[in-house]
Amino acid sequence: MRLTLKRTATRPGNFMKATFMYGAGDVRVETVPDPVLQQPTDAIVRVVRACICGSDLHPYRSMPHTADGVPMGHELIGVVEETGTEVTSVTKGDFVIAPFAFQDNTCVFCREGFQTSCVHGGWYGTPETGGLQAELARIPLADGSLVPVPGIDEKSELLPSLLTLSDVYLTGWHAAHMGRIEPGKTVTVIGDGAVGLSAVLASRRLGAERIILMGRHKNRTGLGAEWGATDIVAERGADGIAMVMDLTHGEGSHVVIEAVGLMPAYEQAYGIVRPGGVISRVGVPQYEDAPVGFGSLFGKNATLTGGPAPVRAYIEQALPDVLQGRIDPGKVFDSTVTLDEVPAGYEAMDARKALKVLIIP
Amino acid sequence: MRLTLKRTATRPGNFMKATFMYGAGDVRVETVPDPVLQQPTDAIVRVVRACICGSDLHPYRSMPHTADGVPMGHELIGVVEETGTEVTSVTKGDFVIAPFAFQDNTCVFCREGFQTSCVHGGWYGTPETGGLQAELARIPLADGSLVPVPGIDEKSELLPSLLTLSDVYLTGWHAAHMGRIEPGKTVTVIGDGAVGLSAVLASRRLGAERIILMGRHKNRTGLGAEWGATDIVAERGADGIAMVMDLTHGEGSHVVIEAVGLMPAYEQAYGIVRPGGVISRVGVPQYEDAPVGFGSLFGKNATLTGGPAPVRAYIEQALPDVLQGRIDPGKVFDSTVTLDEVPAGYEAMDARKALKVLIIP
Repeated sequence: MRLTLKRTATRPGNFMKATFMYGAGDVRVETVPDPVLQQPTDAIVRVVRACICGSDLHPYRSMPHTADGVPMGHELIGVVEETGTEVTSVTKGDFVIAPFAFQDNTCVFCREGFQTSCVHGGWYGTPETGGLQAELARIPLADGSLVPVPGIDEKSELLPSLLTLSDVYLTGWHAAHMGRIEPGKTVTVIGDGAVGLSAVLASRRLGAERIILMGRHKNRTGLGAEWGATDIVAERGADGIAMVMDLTHGEGSHVVIEAVGLMPAYEQAYGIVRPGGVISRVGVPQYEDAPVGFGSLFGKNATLTGGPAPVRAYIEQALPDVLQGRIDPGKVFDSTVTLDEVPAGYEAMDARKALKVLIIP
Repeated sequence: MRLTLKRTATRPGNFMKATFMYGAGDVRVETVPDPVLQQPTDAIVRVVRACICGSDLHPYRSMPHTADGVPMGHELIGVVEETGTEVTSVTKGDFVIAPFAFQDNTCVFCREGFQTSCVHGGWYGTPETGGLQAELARIPLADGSLVPVPGIDEKSELLPSLLTLSDVYLTGWHAAHMGRIEPGKTVTVIGDGAVGLSAVLASRRLGAERIILMGRHKNRTGLGAEWGATDIVAERGADGIAMVMDLTHGEGSHVVIEAVGLMPAYEQAYGIVRPGGVISRVGVPQYEDAPVGFGSLFGKNATLTGGPAPVRAYIEQALPDVLQGRIDPGKVFDSTVTLDEVPAGYEAMDARKALKVLIIP
């Protein structure tokens, strides 16, 4: 591990390990200066658990080489180390969850429940914000971007499930929520990755009567079945569409959750959505244009919805489910690495040897 | 007018006038055999009022020449002349509204409120069904496809408004309904055609606080203002987007109703929709692919919805508004023609000399 000083140390002498991506397949853990408070609204958090996200695999497969490296990671739970003078809702020593985007949680869009569009918010993984696959993280707008969890310590068995409230479980929840799942509805989830499986769990919590999971990795669909999937469809494309139409008596699915982000998954989605139904996307689309005209969405009054999950909006509602053991979304983590092993973690997820990788710094 | 016998007369000797399109710009009114009952669930209706739809202009501008002609028209109010043996809900002499699509109104999709996807339903304007810009019409599945209006006769001043319940007003209503307009919301309606103006009226009925109408025909936007538009934006494209963003303090519109169906209107829609907002389309899209990725819809959690209006679902709710004079959607008709004058009616609508043309057979 080479010592990198390229990021300005404003508090010289303290260094940490953090993850950077230099291009497709090229992830490095480097020693860099500790992050420091830059704004009076910042907090510094010591990372207790972080993880690798399915969305991290997109650049891992396609990112052009860069000389500087891009800081990686946007999910964490941790302990507050230091707070800016204007931070009032958390204090040193608090155990916290950080949603995968930061926000003031007070602006007009935050109040409307779309914190990922916060007018003062933004994303981790930039040179300014740094990444969260690290030992320490600077959290901007800490009052809006950290949720304290009283009574939890670093030895809790709930840590993996609490970490999923930073992104993956609540991204699945967002998909189900935007799909307007309610009791009696048939839901089809496309994708057996960690987000797809989380969407199965969330759909069950919202009362879906039937949950069809489209995926072909048996170790994954098994967890889906445990979490409430009533049918597993391994077929894809036209065969997969035909199978789901059969399962729904030719009617199609009230809600289709598209948790992949690739065009074939989108095509499956509009092939199986029922007239008047909803396609809810949470896989970041790796395309810009897609069919939406009479032959795909319009003709059957299908609704297309979804986007980056405003995780912050849902944490308070989901926390009791985790703390009281009603759900166990942390089961998506089937592999654990140290920070030094993060590059191997990426490799395992990319090769589908791991569903989702937990990081213990 | 030449006498055309190409359509088989099963009750020889009776003939009527009906409208056919032979290609772009080529509309003819011809004398053809009367329609007759074909199924025990059919009814024959004498047309009291019909009209020309904005959607009829799409083939009027682009349809390749055809030797046989396509029967035109899908909106009518009229009087039942004859019913099949299985028809129970209407009888000879009843004054009725016919939604622009036919349906059984009992199948699973009808019960879910999406009658335009009825498993036994379909569209007018085929050789089998005929068109409604005619003296008589065969209405399939009459129990599901005709709504009687007691107490109305052919001299009622409400006829134009009642006719709008066949399509145009309730298509505007569908747009507003699918957009989930509620009190306090800001709505932008793109398009000052008859559907756009109807959407303004429906948005007001649903309690929208602010209604921005994008259109540049002053005689039309004037009716929009009368019906509740609070702001008129004549600019289009980037200028129009900038104007709406200014009007909404940079936030964008909670709901955008796209009542045009062309790509520039769709582009305007995603340019002005607010994070978490809804684009509701009722203009039949003249495109299949469109931007839906991170840069258009996904990034701001915008929802895309809409489709062919299930008018049948909304008639009972809208009727009292018309009968008791709370709304006057019939004002979209600014021109009236006889059946023989229908070709001139198409010409006037195409040239935007008429907003919407009423037909008195």
